[in-house]
Amino acid sequence: MEDVKKTRVESDLIGSREISDECLYGVQTLRGIENFSISKYHLNEYPLFINGLAMTKMAAARANHELGLLTDEQFQAITQACREILEGRFHDQFPVDMIQGGAGTSTNMNANEVIANRALEIMGHAHGDYAFCSPNDHVNCSQSTNDAYPTTIHLGMYATHLKLLPYLEDLIAAFRRKGEEFAHIIKMGRTQLEDAVPMTLGQTFNGFASILTDEIKHLNEAAADFLTVNMGATAIGTGICAEPGYAEKCIAALRDITGWDIRLSDDLVGATSDTSCLVGYASAMKRLAVKVNKICNDLRLLASGPRCGLGEINLPAMQPGSSIMPGKVNPVIPEVMNQICFKVIGNELCVTMASEAAQMELNVMEPVMVQCCFESAELMMNGFRTLRTLCVEGITANEEHCINEVHHSIGVVTALNPVIGYKNSTKIAKEALETGKSVYQLILDHGILTKEEIDQILSPENMIHPVKLNIKHR
Amino acid sequence: MEDVKKTRVESDLIGSREISDECLYGVQTLRGIENFSISKYHLNEYPLFINGLAMTKMAAARANHELGLLTDEQFQAITQACREILEGRFHDQFPVDMIQGGAGTSTNMNANEVIANRALEIMGHAHGDYAFCSPNDHVNCSQSTNDAYPTTIHLGMYATHLKLLPYLEDLIAAFRRKGEEFAHIIKMGRTQLEDAVPMTLGQTFNGFASILTDEIKHLNEAAADFLTVNMGATAIGTGICAEPGYAEKCIAALRDITGWDIRLSDDLVGATSDTSCLVGYASAMKRLAVKVNKICNDLRLLASGPRCGLGEINLPAMQPGSSIMPGKVNPVIPEVMNQICFKVIGNELCVTMASEAAQMELNVMEPVMVQCCFESAELMMNGFRTLRTLCVEGITANEEHCINEVHHSIGVVTALNPVIGYKNSTKIAKEALETGKSVYQLILDHGILTKEEIDQILSPENMIHPVKLNIKHR
Amino acid sequence: MEDVKKTRVESDLIGSREISDECLYGVQTLRGIENFSISKYHLNEYPLFINGLAMTKMAAARANHELGLLTDEQFQAITQACREILEGRFHDQFPVDMIQGGAGTSTNMNANEVIANRALEIMGHAHGDYAFCSPNDHVNCSQSTNDAYPTTIHLGMYATHLKLLPYLEDLIAAFRRKGEEFAHIIKMGRTQLEDAVPMTLGQTFNGFASILTDEIKHLNEAAADFLTVNMGATAIGTGICAEPGYAEKCIAALRDITGWDIRLSDDLVGATSDTSCLVGYASAMKRLAVKVNKICNDLRLLASGPRCGLGEINLPAMQPGSSIMPGKVNPVIPEVMNQICFKVIGNELCVTMASEAAQMELNVMEPVMVQCCFESAELMMNGFRTLRTLCVEGITANEEHCINEVHHSIGVVTALNPVIGYKNSTKIAKEALETGKSVYQLILDHGILTKEEIDQILSPENMIHPVKLNIKHR
Amino acid sequence: MEDVKKTRVESDLIGSREISDECLYGVQTLRGIENFSISKYHLNEYPLFINGLAMTKMAAARANHELGLLTDEQFQAITQACREILEGRFHDQFPVDMIQGGAGTSTNMNANEVIANRALEIMGHAHGDYAFCSPNDHVNCSQSTNDAYPTTIHLGMYATHLKLLPYLEDLIAAFRRKGEEFAHIIKMGRTQLEDAVPMTLGQTFNGFASILTDEIKHLNEAAADFLTVNMGATAIGTGICAEPGYAEKCIAALRDITGWDIRLSDDLVGATSDTSCLVGYASAMKRLAVKVNKICNDLRLLASGPRCGLGEINLPAMQPGSSIMPGKVNPVIPEVMNQICFKVIGNELCVTMASEAAQMELNVMEPVMVQCCFESAELMMNGFRTLRTLCVEGITANEEHCINEVHHSIGVVTALNPVIGYKNSTKIAKEALETGKSVYQLILDHGILTKEEIDQILSPENMIHPVKLNIKHR
Repeated sequence: MEDVKKTRVESDLIGSREISDECLYGVQTLRGIENFSISKYHLNEYPLFINGLAMTKMAAARANHELGLLTDEQFQAITQACREILEGRFHDQFPVDMIQGGAGTSTNMNANEVIANRALEIMGHAHGDYAFCSPNDHVNCSQSTNDAYPTTIHLGMYATHLKLLPYLEDLIAAFRRKGEEFAHIIKMGRTQLEDAVPMTLGQTFNGFASILTDEIKHLNEAAADFLTVNMGATAIGTGICAEPGYAEKCIAALRDITGWDIRLSDDLVGATSDTSCLVGYASAMKRLAVKVNKICNDLRLLASGPRCGLGEINLPAMQPGSSIMPGKVNPVIPEVMNQICFKVIGNELCVTMASEAAQMELNVMEPVMVQCCFESAELMMNGFRTLRTLCVEGITANEEHCINEVHHSIGVVTALNPVIGYKNSTKIAKEALETGKSVYQLILDHGILTKEEIDQILSPENMIHPVKLNIKHR
Repeated sequence: MEDVKKTRVESDLIGSREISDECLYGVQTLRGIENFSISKYHLNEYPLFINGLAMTKMAAARANHELGLLTDEQFQAITQACREILEGRFHDQFPVDMIQGGAGTSTNMNANEVIANRALEIMGHAHGDYAFCSPNDHVNCSQSTNDAYPTTIHLGMYATHLKLLPYLEDLIAAFRRKGEEFAHIIKMGRTQLEDAVPMTLGQTFNGFASILTDEIKHLNEAAADFLTVNMGATAIGTGICAEPGYAEKCIAALRDITGWDIRLSDDLVGATSDTSCLVGYASAMKRLAVKVNKICNDLRLLASGPRCGLGEINLPAMQPGSSIMPGKVNPVIPEVMNQICFKVIGNELCVTMASEAAQMELNVMEPVMVQCCFESAELMMNGFRTLRTLCVEGITANEEHCINEVHHSIGVVTALNPVIGYKNSTKIAKEALETGKSVYQLILDHGILTKEEIDQILSPENMIHPVKLNIKHR
Repeated sequence: MEDVKKTRVESDLIGSREISDECLYGVQTLRGIENFSISKYHLNEYPLFINGLAMTKMAAARANHELGLLTDEQFQAITQACREILEGRFHDQFPVDMIQGGAGTSTNMNANEVIANRALEIMGHAHGDYAFCSPNDHVNCSQSTNDAYPTTIHLGMYATHLKLLPYLEDLIAAFRRKGEEFAHIIKMGRTQLEDAVPMTLGQTFNGFASILTDEIKHLNEAAADFLTVNMGATAIGTGICAEPGYAEKCIAALRDITGWDIRLSDDLVGATSDTSCLVGYASAMKRLAVKVNKICNDLRLLASGPRCGLGEINLPAMQPGSSIMPGKVNPVIPEVMNQICFKVIGNELCVTMASEAAQMELNVMEPVMVQCCFESAELMMNGFRTLRTLCVEGITANEEHCINEVHHSIGVVTALNPVIGYKNSTKIAKEALETGKSVYQLILDHGILTKEEIDQILSPENMIHPVKLNIKHR
Repeated sequence: MEDVKKTRVESDLIGSREISDECLYGVQTLRGIENFSISKYHLNEYPLFINGLAMTKMAAARANHELGLLTDEQFQAITQACREILEGRFHDQFPVDMIQGGAGTSTNMNANEVIANRALEIMGHAHGDYAFCSPNDHVNCSQSTNDAYPTTIHLGMYATHLKLLPYLEDLIAAFRRKGEEFAHIIKMGRTQLEDAVPMTLGQTFNGFASILTDEIKHLNEAAADFLTVNMGATAIGTGICAEPGYAEKCIAALRDITGWDIRLSDDLVGATSDTSCLVGYASAMKRLAVKVNKICNDLRLLASGPRCGLGEINLPAMQPGSSIMPGKVNPVIPEVMNQICFKVIGNELCVTMASEAAQMELNVMEPVMVQCCFESAELMMNGFRTLRTLCVEGITANEEHCINEVHHSIGVVTALNPVIGYKNSTKIAKEALETGKSVYQLILDHGILTKEEIDQILSPENMIHPVKLNIKHR
């Protein structure tokens, strides 16, 4: 008569357990929750991963139905359940820790149980009435965790990759726009932190854009591996419990459901213990992080000052820079991006070590790899958006300071090499350094070139790209 | 007339902002929230870190009060506010992302603002009425983020260390108990995965306990560094804005508040950019992780089977091992511990890279180091508890299988070395391998030793520790 | 009268130095030797790198000659000198440490000096008579270390890549041959180190071959980056001191000299500080190392024993395994390959950190990246050859033991899933485990299936690939 | 008749081999040479490691002699042979690759064979006449590779540690001297690369000295572990083939031979597979490398310029900085030190991974760990000497430029906090930044303080340490 919570009893190899009947998940998910109270990350915070589960199960159901292993009713109910998950319903029903033992069995069974119980609802049966639709025999039909889980990871990571790219592209576009905006600002270039030769500030920002653009190719190459999956491998790649033709039907269904160019692995035994696509993508993110790190370091160096630094650019002031130093403004946005990069690099090592721990027909360490890859991608997305909107787009240049540096620099002597040779140029440079005089003045003083010749050679505009001078002394 | 939310206006270097008056935090915390929407980790999930903030601020207030820089009323109100934070109130008022730019300024100001506004409440003033108690001039008096934040980290990490140790000690004790329980079980030892010579299963588990015990010393050595802090360094270690004697008073207060042997750094300039204590502790956790990893690998190897593996021990069955293979039981608990170890190792690399990024008078990358160190410690605590309660304590041995292995092994031939020499032993071993005969039988067949002599030498009890044999043939 | 060694005096920015006239190198190389007494690695041990220097200088000379910047005589002499270096002469004239400051300037000047002095010899002038052919003005004409050195690295690494591939391919072929040889041997597969379901030993070895084959693609993708070079960038990418058209002529010459599809970087400023191709290749080698590591671990596991291990295969006995345990044979070759893999992984981290240290228009840390990449590639070549010839090719199988394992295993119960369902199969499995009875016997005892049905389902041949059974109980 | 090389035949488990009789080493060393053609590193390049072998064997011989297991003649001959090795004779007789499979068996047998044959010579017997003194039965008596090899590593690494320390101490002393030399030079401190508050250049260099000094303690703590050894463990820690009392006698001999505080491991089973002391020392070197890296980065930043950088210090010019930019001088010595640090960090990862690969009673991956640790230590020694002699000792300061920066900076406004409060100071700072006026002038203009007060507060001497001002406005 009162609001006693309804429960049901489910059993597995270990024994029987009472479960709140509000739960779509069942006893094996419960085991997962109890066994793995480990981290702050749970499946339900990774929607693209849960979507991957739903797509995998939907594809398997379609293949099984075509082979006559599921009834029409079962097939339709399972398919509808999966579709609802893709719509974002029931994500709260995935409470298992991302970092788990068992090579993903808890995750796979979590999906199997949620889908089975939702399918039972749709079919008009009670939760747990698994004779009509069982997590193992129907939802997981022709599958093992060892093919369904890696396939899910591949789908989830590919979706993540597609989501990540625009964040990167937007950041690149922002740098490119600054490249145009600053195309006319002449400044000193620096190698080994020492004054080198002139360049434009636009070249600096275009350089940032260009080196990041290269990474899109590398990310795409790495992500392409995710499109090869091992459905049909079942337990160890031999396809035990799967019928001939199942794998191909499953792939066809996945291509249809995702719209992606999914293909079957050539060697299902080899593929089933192989997590190198995660290493590859983690390495691609790392490679990108290495570049972003360098760019953020440069932004901080170029913005150093305001009076005792390089002071070539200004980053937008986002917050008071100090609890003690009034008026201080710090490059807080590049700084947080740097830290994201370190985290991404650390995560890559975790993925590497976990991948190396594969043994014989499986790698049980996949869950932590997945957590790391999703985390890194998400941190990068947030970082790229933050860096673009709160920093790059608002950068301004100290044009006058930049050109002044060029005028006072010794490095312009380099432009004289083709005319007076390295050895003579070295003498001029040395004298300039010792006397504090300008290179311009010294060449004039020594009567090495005429004023017109010097003006031609030392024109900043002539120093920022290859030129053919009509002056020959050598 | 209605429940319009009351707000107040606060301003900083950047401008003015409206803040809900329910918030104890102020404008600078708001900037932090808006600037750093980066990760899943926020201050309020790290209570030991927030406690560190409260202890640091309480100590500084005491020193400032003694120097006449705070009124009695301010001092008492600030102290009470800090005490309330230590009691766990207001932790929700720390919403800033752990991974932030600005070298912790947002975290420090979050504490300054919460404490100032709570102090104002206590003093009977309105939130934001900072003339009476200002986040910067009073709560942060004589401090910079650059000393208050690292000191907070040290306190938070030391508390974390003290919390971690018992988890490790409990795990060690569990291994030690199994060492006793299995002291009589004779089994083959293996080197390079190949059969070596006999030992007891108890020796294996005692070995686990012993090598983990060694790590307590290393963790303690690493954690000792946290007890040296740089309060009084202020902005860059020179102590600007702090009066002579302040640092010493602050240290005295910290020793009193914490009960720990806190000391002042010898060189405040050097100390202020130095985060090597975090590298040290991260490395100590890594070193521990390397060992735990090895132990978990061994548990999994020794439990491999049930029929085609080593099968010397049984781990408790925690969940069905497979969605496809009925009856399969997997070592899911050591597996999740392995993954924690990989994460700890990855985090250590992140800490290393962030530490290496220090520049001149500061290291702005401290926030991500802190996040990594707290995360690793927490994962280890959860992992150790899980490993102990759900695995180690329930391990049983397959005693008969173990002794059978010894009886069939060739490795026992080693015990003959002192009597018949390495060369002759090698011949016996080779013959045993080729014929399938036992070492025992072959020695008897060849008339090398009498049955009594063989029984003495090859008694398992004589092979598991140094013995003095009374048989000499050489 | 006597054998007084002839010397010459050379001078640079720092001052004058006497040099043995036997040396083709000059004062700047001498500075490099004296400044960098650091490691065990010197240029002269890296012939493919020295060849890269010669090809780069030869290409630049051709471009400069076409532009009228070198006389016919200079061009021919420089070209001949480069060709002689490619023939392996003068490699001893490259004594500088691989790990050096100065972003490769010492290496570049070493080449410039050797080539200039050899060219002077060819032209009939004395060593050091640089008016006729100067290291800086002629050999280095239109170049900077900052384009010549990275280009050299790219050429040297691409050559190394081409050399590495056959070692990998030969190893793959050896695994593939074992895959065929062992195609008929049925054994238990294992997941999570626990008995899973049957497979063939051939599938195991084919799996090794397949996952390694995938890496060829990734190595090729990574190496493709080396074909993009920044010749013409000169000091910082702006092309100062180079004439319009020089870069294109230089690339054309490089394509001709190397026969490779060399192209010019799109953005020379971005490219000049970018070393991500080294990160990419180091990561590709790491990814390969992770797989090779896993394979070697598997070989050691499968060969464990001889009596108390898995004992499915035998590795060739290469040496006595122990100084104390007679007759012991250890898997020493996979073990050394494992260690190579760890070294490759460590080197990749060094490359990552060095790449991340780029600042503004240059990355001065390139030398250590180069050392790491060359070292890793060489270790892998030696390792692959050793692993193939001293281990893989001699592996034999313990066929009878393998099939016995299958017959005794519980895992075969999996094959019953499609017929009797997961739940019923679980019960059989549990009973088998508890009673020690075989799955076959239990199904018969319980009258679940007929003997014919069981024979069909549990035929090992039916368990190693997908099958369509004609038995339906569900 | 003529100079036909004399040979002898030796045999082992694998078969017989002819060996040049000039070789002191025997058949097992030959196997090692042939099996492991892997790297550029061979035992004979690591004298401290070979010395470790000799000390270990000498100690074991003494213990065995005391137990009556070696004759007087054998004992004396073995001892003399070991002493001669310690004198540097026969190092060429150790040709095996450092990176080897077999857990060091080849290294141990190399020592056993060289010592046995040299002992035979001393005793007047022919090489290979092992009945009188056998590599296995006499030199290796009561030992296994699994205790002798790790003990050797410990001895070799401890000697390396003792050798490394003075290099570090000399570097620290050089920084300390610069700290004194520059004690009077006032300059701007920087946090987050932004102008902060004044300090002295001496404080900067003292800071370098101080943070490095801290690392001596950590290196010593890590090295202390090497003094615990597992002699007597024999094959797996159980002491098979060793008599009671042997281990203790062996330790006593080692203490005597080395003069170090050697002790026996508490748990020989645990110790025998444990390589964490190598992880610990590698991590300590890494931690040091992280700091040295930061210091070198700072040196390069502070020396940046000469006209467009920070330009506070000058590093000695060691070589022309560029093949194209005349007069350019680069910080080549800090740059090479940076690269050493990256290599040390990479090596530490290799050691970590190798340590993690321990399995059951042994870790076969020790050889690569040893190579990494010796390499890192040697690189650091060379780097520290180079950094000290070719850079630090010759650093000069640009005193005038430094003080000018302080005078123009806004950061000095911080000193006003205690007097006018953070909020008012912020306004002054903002106005200074916008107008370009000095803080000094603005305070005067606004009539906030008297000239005398300003002079007191803004006196640079008052800003570089805590001060008690007699001015109170708050």
